[in-house]
Amino acid sequence: MQELFYYDGEFYENGDGLVHLEDRAFQMGDGIFEVLPVYDGKVFAMPQHVARYTKSMRDLVIPIVDPDEDMINVCQELINRSGIEFGQIYIQISRGQWQRQLNYPLQCFPHIAMTIRENLIDLDAQEQGIACSLEEDIRGLRCDLPTLNRIGNAIAMEAAYNKHCQNAVLYRKDTNQITEAANANFFIYREGILWTHPANNLILPGITREIILKELLPKLGITAVEKAVTPEFAYGAEEAFITATDIEIQPVIRLNNHKIGEGTPGPITKKILSAFQEYVDVELSKLHFGPKETEISEAVLANTSFKN
Amino acid sequence: MQELFYYDGEFYENGDGLVHLEDRAFQMGDGIFEVLPVYDGKVFAMPQHVARYTKSMRDLVIPIVDPDEDMINVCQELINRSGIEFGQIYIQISRGQWQRQLNYPLQCFPHIAMTIRENLIDLDAQEQGIACSLEEDIRGLRCDLPTLNRIGNAIAMEAAYNKHCQNAVLYRKDTNQITEAANANFFIYREGILWTHPANNLILPGITREIILKELLPKLGITAVEKAVTPEFAYGAEEAFITATDIEIQPVIRLNNHKIGEGTPGPITKKILSAFQEYVDVELSKLHFGPKETEISEAVLANTSFKN
Repeated sequence: MQELFYYDGEFYENGDGLVHLEDRAFQMGDGIFEVLPVYDGKVFAMPQHVARYTKSMRDLVIPIVDPDEDMINVCQELINRSGIEFGQIYIQISRGQWQRQLNYPLQCFPHIAMTIRENLIDLDAQEQGIACSLEEDIRGLRCDLPTLNRIGNAIAMEAAYNKHCQNAVLYRKDTNQITEAANANFFIYREGILWTHPANNLILPGITREIILKELLPKLGITAVEKAVTPEFAYGAEEAFITATDIEIQPVIRLNNHKIGEGTPGPITKKILSAFQEYVDVELSKLHFGPKETEISEAVLANTSFKN
Repeated sequence: MQELFYYDGEFYENGDGLVHLEDRAFQMGDGIFEVLPVYDGKVFAMPQHVARYTKSMRDLVIPIVDPDEDMINVCQELINRSGIEFGQIYIQISRGQWQRQLNYPLQCFPHIAMTIRENLIDLDAQEQGIACSLEEDIRGLRCDLPTLNRIGNAIAMEAAYNKHCQNAVLYRKDTNQITEAANANFFIYREGILWTHPANNLILPGITREIILKELLPKLGITAVEKAVTPEFAYGAEEAFITATDIEIQPVIRLNNHKIGEGTPGPITKKILSAFQEYVDVELSKLHFGPKETEISEAVLANTSFKN
């Protein structure tokens, strides 16, 4: 099976005709999303993803509900029923449906949609690197929230594709600073230091980004700074790469018309990618099968209750 | 009937279960909306609204299609079938459905959703005025497009409601300039001049705003400038008001904790409101019944073909 859907407690082979015309996600993007990676039938980094979407819901005052099943069991069911071993689970939670108005309705109830689909990591992109265009970051000022307001990301990605690039690196025109890529975080390596934008309101705090910064770099002895860089500084980087759940790490070998370093994936990027893949393997080996067995620490659970 | 729905060629009394889980409007707000006012069973200013949503679709490269019926006939049908004489027709066009990806899919086909609902103009608000809070404008940099990315508007409106205000006036923190209200354009009257933000990328170019600036003010002999003002300048205004299709014109008598003028609707605002209502009456009297008879000029039609 290539794709399987879940909506508010039921499983569907086809996603057609499920959503109400007055769902606030449909009318104004009032909801949040999360992408979970599935390796070998197991969900990687589930606790971190649960913690992130729970925080996003709290920030947006979307009630946190237990939709009959708990979310972890639904992930397990999606994997089991679809038979998908390498893929991604997309979770989308809408504030609910209500006669159209901007302020949050008091009585509406969140709707939960989930999709599992196959996603083989793009090994070619990892080995050969990708080209990115530089596009203006026209998004709003809460890019830290994974809301369903993604038209700014889509416009940038479309512009990149039209220039035969595989992703867009975004920069704020007012400050001339790079924030992140259209659907990934962005790093450069220059002058012995790895640079990436701080996790403030202007970027989505990626789980892969966090694992690299907190788990991998200290062990690899690589120094990182969380500081925004200008496009001109990035053009002169020795290496660059982007990170996201569904791509892991992809070397960036061209940014606009500027070759990055030698125009091939560099040694630091390769070292971090290897370390990441090793980290995934080790973490997965701690799980017996699927997300049901994911060890969610007491600390995480305390912050991520499904009941409100 | 209080509400009637239309989706891709069919009419429904209930909007439940119509939209696909992979509709791009649902997943990322990739689509546009338009609100048409219905007075006495007739659609006011249809040509201007058609021109605006057509321009928005062109800007977003959403194919312009004729969904079996032409849109004007659907409006007429919604009015006839619902029996609603005073209300609003909400039009929402999604780019279509496709397996989730940011760049625009080549093969997907737009979906058209429409809702008619009763909307009696809030006469109390028009007569007594409203209070607005001042909120940061956290939206992106294409506010001129009526896309379905409205979480920034919703967050601001919710903040206003929590302060017992009826709307939010938005300002950009980086420039300290007021843009517009959460779902309306914003005007102040000060020192003999009417001030409103220029129709650039930071505001939605409202039809009511345009009618006031182009049709009414010259006749009333009121001078207007399209120039952004600071909150501090607005606090010292003699009068202020907001404008939108579904509210017409509402005097703003308080902004944050600052009384505007005498704290009651001022004479200039009342004069413009009267002139607007007269203008609506005259324009409607030119229509026989409903939007079918709306005179759409050749010039407008040339720019708004339903075929692409």
